[in-house]
Amino acid sequence: MNEFTIHATSGAARVGSLIVPHGTVETPVFMPVGTQGTVRALSPNDLRAAGASLVLANTYHLHVRPGEQVIEKLGGLHRFMAWDRPLLTDSGGFQVFSLEGFRRVSEDGVEFQSHVDGSRRTLTPERATEIQWTLGADIVMAFDHVVPGGADEATARDAMERTLRWLERCARRHEELTAQGGTAAGRQERVDRGHAALPPCRQALWPILQGGTHLVLREGGLRRICDMRPWTGLAIGGLSVGEPKPVMYGMLEALEPRLPAAAPRYLMGVGFPEDLVAAVERGMDLFDCVAPTRNGRNGSAFTPDGPVNIRNAEHRDDARPLDETCDCETCTTFSRGYLRHLFVAEELLGLRLLSLHNVRYLIRLAEEMRAAIRRNAFGSWATNWRRRYLHPGSA
Amino acid sequence: MNEFTIHATSGAARVGSLIVPHGTVETPVFMPVGTQGTVRALSPNDLRAAGASLVLANTYHLHVRPGEQVIEKLGGLHRFMAWDRPLLTDSGGFQVFSLEGFRRVSEDGVEFQSHVDGSRRTLTPERATEIQWTLGADIVMAFDHVVPGGADEATARDAMERTLRWLERCARRHEELTAQGGTAAGRQERVDRGHAALPPCRQALWPILQGGTHLVLREGGLRRICDMRPWTGLAIGGLSVGEPKPVMYGMLEALEPRLPAAAPRYLMGVGFPEDLVAAVERGMDLFDCVAPTRNGRNGSAFTPDGPVNIRNAEHRDDARPLDETCDCETCTTFSRGYLRHLFVAEELLGLRLLSLHNVRYLIRLAEEMRAAIRRNAFGSWATNWRRRYLHPGSA
Repeated sequence: MNEFTIHATSGAARVGSLIVPHGTVETPVFMPVGTQGTVRALSPNDLRAAGASLVLANTYHLHVRPGEQVIEKLGGLHRFMAWDRPLLTDSGGFQVFSLEGFRRVSEDGVEFQSHVDGSRRTLTPERATEIQWTLGADIVMAFDHVVPGGADEATARDAMERTLRWLERCARRHEELTAQGGTAAGRQERVDRGHAALPPCRQALWPILQGGTHLVLREGGLRRICDMRPWTGLAIGGLSVGEPKPVMYGMLEALEPRLPAAAPRYLMGVGFPEDLVAAVERGMDLFDCVAPTRNGRNGSAFTPDGPVNIRNAEHRDDARPLDETCDCETCTTFSRGYLRHLFVAEELLGLRLLSLHNVRYLIRLAEEMRAAIRRNAFGSWATNWRRRYLHPGSA
Repeated sequence: MNEFTIHATSGAARVGSLIVPHGTVETPVFMPVGTQGTVRALSPNDLRAAGASLVLANTYHLHVRPGEQVIEKLGGLHRFMAWDRPLLTDSGGFQVFSLEGFRRVSEDGVEFQSHVDGSRRTLTPERATEIQWTLGADIVMAFDHVVPGGADEATARDAMERTLRWLERCARRHEELTAQGGTAAGRQERVDRGHAALPPCRQALWPILQGGTHLVLREGGLRRICDMRPWTGLAIGGLSVGEPKPVMYGMLEALEPRLPAAAPRYLMGVGFPEDLVAAVERGMDLFDCVAPTRNGRNGSAFTPDGPVNIRNAEHRDDARPLDETCDCETCTTFSRGYLRHLFVAEELLGLRLLSLHNVRYLIRLAEEMRAAIRRNAFGSWATNWRRRYLHPGSA
């Protein structure tokens, strides 16, 4: 369990497969985001049809509502949201530090205010680990102290040091829970499936590297994370939070040679199609972003020729599909004219159909990238892809 | 085409099959309502999975937005909304008379204001017929003058007399269009399917009987409608608009023996489960209502034990399905606890899952009624059904 095998490389780009309790994930992979235990407007059947192999959910949101005890009682997060493939939960660090409202950081953890009912709550590294254990995802993230994108070095260093101390506490608590024999949801699932005698499913805990835009902090943090323990994967957080794109790309280029080659690398919160391509080019393996569903609900669709706003009048009586190269239900069933009508008439089906297409688009983009890497031709593929996506007129 | 065959009866209740260009409809049947060319929150695949055999769309809404020319250019209403089974369009009469805003009735037709952009528009019997012809549904309705539910006899008589004169104009225009050889969409469809040599699909025009709660008006109107022409179906409008339920039931009982037995009877805008059962008991065959989707979006679900509000706290950690007897995706996949979470967290998937269940519920209810009629046991079935649905505690 939690084995990662690299099958091919092309420059820094890699194709791998990651085996976790609920299945195998081919990388590079895009994870749709199911913040509250549902990928907005999409059903598990939609996600399977879109080819999703791994879905992200948020510890903070699920802790605040409906609460991990409710989810445990309903059989764990997989059964709760009826998603039988791999799941990853973020630790809640990002949410606690980025949502509006009161928060107080101490060495112990973070006291904050629920965005749902205003109640005071506390998350510590141990609690975040226990909640994620209860939810029962295949991969869980360490609880981190996140600072704003533009934080100065002293602020970023302080948060990074704390994040490292918290990582040690997360890892210890996670080892204790693992030693107790698998998650409650995992045990129940094995009973349901008649495999009670099988060894417990192993949940993987991954560290998150912070450090803002300060390379020296990130290099030092990475070294200390790697010295701490062998990890089955590693995440890079705190990028794609408003800094110029060249800054992110430069950071990835500087970090890539220092990352353990044998572990999958998860670039958190990325992203848009052009970011995915650039990050795969720089050796990243896993990605998540709300863009496909959020933009879809706003009527913006990814296509090989760049984004299309389906509300535009030009689509009024256009019989063509949104994306002629796409195999999703939206593109194989409906015309641009109909999709525009759904948005102009404020019909719910439009939100779902564009979300579905955008998710499928990013999953297909990852599929295409894997094929290009296997051909050891990622560079030329990326050049052609960019020529069409970024400059559709010149194709 | 447009043949109706009665296979079994039980009291006044009947089982029949109605053959229209896009397929066969078993009656009694519930039609989901796709006002703007989409059944709110549901896709054509959802509707097929729910067993929908006939869907209703609205002439007024589609004329105002996106306009019938756009739909014609996109291949007609069936192709526009990707619904390959039978379609029925309402004429726009009900909408023109019930939506807010300016309206002026003359013998020629109705001038009204678009709810979308405030523009002045006119619908006449001929225009309503032409628009529906362009849309290309299998069954279309005559343009009627609708008066409020509580209208006095003089007002209701005036509107009914006008509706009869308008019916004659609708029928003449419809005969002219039919003589020209099928709808444009139907012709295109036959070309696409390689059946260009087949005879044109026949669109059916059905009259609407009005008359408010005045039996004498309804009896007279019905006689004159039947004397006018042979019709392939007949609708009863202006009921279930706020009058007490016994008034509607009494009206149906009085009219039923006078209705042509060989034509399907469409009771417009009905309804809730108890209304469907009562109306089938009184010889009605087709029904439409926004209740399953509208109530579903509000978190209210039909179940054999009566309506359930999924937002209630009692469902918080309830692992049971919404309706243990139901075979829909919602009930076979998700717990009440998860569905409640979706509503409390204001997630779009909840709107869809409850809409889907409610539509499936009414379609299954019609299926159950057909089975009871075939057993010639509708009365006892209805008694048992009501005992459970209306008094769940005493079951």
